[in-house]
Amino acid sequence: MASARTPIVVIAPDSFKGSLSAPQVCTAIARGLWRARSDIDVRECPMADGGEGTLDAILSHEGARYTRSLTGAGGGRRSAAYGVIDGREGSTAIIEAAEVVGITDAAGMSVPVAHRSTQGMGELIRALLDAGICRFMIGLGGSSTNDGGAGMLVALGMRVFDTNGDAIVPTPSSLSTLARIDSSALDPRLARTTITIMSDVNNPLSGPQGATAIFGPQKGVASSDIAAIDTAVARFAAHAERALGRRVADNPGAGAAGGLGFALQLIGGKFRSGAEVVADTIGLDAAFHGADFAITGEGRSDAQTLLRKAPFVVAERARNAGVPIVLLSGAIDAAALPSLSRVYAGSFALPSGPVTLEECIANADALLADRAEQIARLFFTAASR
Amino acid sequence: MASARTPIVVIAPDSFKGSLSAPQVCTAIARGLWRARSDIDVRECPMADGGEGTLDAILSHEGARYTRSLTGAGGGRRSAAYGVIDGREGSTAIIEAAEVVGITDAAGMSVPVAHRSTQGMGELIRALLDAGICRFMIGLGGSSTNDGGAGMLVALGMRVFDTNGDAIVPTPSSLSTLARIDSSALDPRLARTTITIMSDVNNPLSGPQGATAIFGPQKGVASSDIAAIDTAVARFAAHAERALGRRVADNPGAGAAGGLGFALQLIGGKFRSGAEVVADTIGLDAAFHGADFAITGEGRSDAQTLLRKAPFVVAERARNAGVPIVLLSGAIDAAALPSLSRVYAGSFALPSGPVTLEECIANADALLADRAEQIARLFFTAASR
Repeated sequence: MASARTPIVVIAPDSFKGSLSAPQVCTAIARGLWRARSDIDVRECPMADGGEGTLDAILSHEGARYTRSLTGAGGGRRSAAYGVIDGREGSTAIIEAAEVVGITDAAGMSVPVAHRSTQGMGELIRALLDAGICRFMIGLGGSSTNDGGAGMLVALGMRVFDTNGDAIVPTPSSLSTLARIDSSALDPRLARTTITIMSDVNNPLSGPQGATAIFGPQKGVASSDIAAIDTAVARFAAHAERALGRRVADNPGAGAAGGLGFALQLIGGKFRSGAEVVADTIGLDAAFHGADFAITGEGRSDAQTLLRKAPFVVAERARNAGVPIVLLSGAIDAAALPSLSRVYAGSFALPSGPVTLEECIANADALLADRAEQIARLFFTAASR
Repeated sequence: MASARTPIVVIAPDSFKGSLSAPQVCTAIARGLWRARSDIDVRECPMADGGEGTLDAILSHEGARYTRSLTGAGGGRRSAAYGVIDGREGSTAIIEAAEVVGITDAAGMSVPVAHRSTQGMGELIRALLDAGICRFMIGLGGSSTNDGGAGMLVALGMRVFDTNGDAIVPTPSSLSTLARIDSSALDPRLARTTITIMSDVNNPLSGPQGATAIFGPQKGVASSDIAAIDTAVARFAAHAERALGRRVADNPGAGAAGGLGFALQLIGGKFRSGAEVVADTIGLDAAFHGADFAITGEGRSDAQTLLRKAPFVVAERARNAGVPIVLLSGAIDAAALPSLSRVYAGSFALPSGPVTLEECIANADALLADRAEQIARLFFTAASR
């Protein structure tokens, strides 16, 4: 390494769930790096995987944040954040399902799953279509709903009727009486719209590996209700597929976000790995140019990390750029170290001694700076030999 | 770094107290290094600071281990290990006070401090003089005794009498009645003997900073007994100094090992930092030749580490040899990181996530290998750029 050159370090971590957002992780690591060497050109590239934090990660690179009042999962009004990036080919909206129908929304969670709806997602998309936007990047994950995306499609113009020919509300509870779908009034602008769905979920919409069976319980579906809700959602899906002449319910990811993965595919959305989309959007590859090394990380790393989670996607792109990549996570599963060591030039955890999870989370900012400093000191000492 | 060259790493840790001996720490770190790069020339140099583990550290380099039956601190028989190194200028004995009158000896500890004696130390030295040895390296630390070294001196020929002219046993309890010392029968070979005292204790023999006041309580001296025992020891010291025509009771270190530091100085012993003596004896400086980097460590590192403890002495010698030195300890006090960072090219701790002290100690071997592997991976990745 030419010692006269300004050293360059890329910081591209996911958020540390329950502790720090990805931009906060970047700030803490940068502070440590500068303690090791004050002349480092630090490139902060907060990452996300399409779930919570995706909007923040993208907006920290470019775009503007807005909020809009819409219908929450439980039926009440709710304010949801979204982003818009203006580009040469038009504007792109960034939506997080968790912002609209999130599992952290107490009002939505107070209503039984059978009565929750994704209507707000449709309202937001419609409003953005009205604003002339025709590109969407929608992050799934962290949703409280399990309506097969029916609420969203109805808000976008689809009409659903029971056996009496009466219009019904698009919730799992009502969908069990569904007899007919009319999609003639579905917003025609959707046909000219590009929808990128960010999710790493591969489950189909229904059945034993479907949304209700696998993700229902954590949203509050009682095990005795799984079969009924799964049947109602499958019934809706079969009608909706027939109405639109497209079969997507068995596609991988149709079961993401309680079936939003199904409904978004039905209107033309394409799945991509959330981390890959974020990496592209924030220009991660360009950030690696000329870098001495890069740091990525997450709250806890284990064998799952290598299943294309954000720190893995960062590692792959660093490797392609010829930049050594170091993993700095809150904790690292010792059993996964051999696999992680095939990907990372070094894997390090936050604690500097015996510590509880709570202490580790509470002190994550200081611990990150400390560890990053030591990693940088060791790296630049070795590089200067 | 010429990548064709065999990489060389020096491992020179202190023991991890309560967990692994220094040779065990070396073995664990070496295993991790070889996982990172199987071609590393690993140079294992277990260190010690003159206290427990000093004998093992030195004997892992050279010399032979022996055991001898002698009088323990409590008066019963006890088997104690010692070492002998044969050199061109004659043989050198390595003695750990803790092996003879150690605080871990339950039989000795079952007797009140006022009745414990260092007689066994004198027996061992005498036996070694008989064997023709005229160089001694004696590690103080971890002793259960507080007799001012009177027991040792009596075993070496000194005679102590009470006001009636009767010979008394050399324990704190009896020394309060001391009236006269006859040193005429003190072993004359001591005059031709070199004694190196290994200790980092700087306390004088008696008074408020003396052995009894400062170290007595951890040996079982009740606070109400401190004054009486301190007075008895000071009384012995005054008589002994007069008998030998030498004043050493106020010297730094006279209060080490309950006054063995006083008695050994009285017969010509010279204090040296234990870690410095061990480093010299094991040839640490030579081990650094051509090394890429070195690893040192201890159970827990904090600001005290820089007060010339073993990992600091290793760091100083590594720096003089131009070799980067990494600290790998069980735990590292975050508050000491800024100071440690002035000495080490990187400071790392064992845990890979939230963990209790007990788990950390129980898994120290595996954790050491894991951390050493990651440090080596990062170092050699950086060095090859």
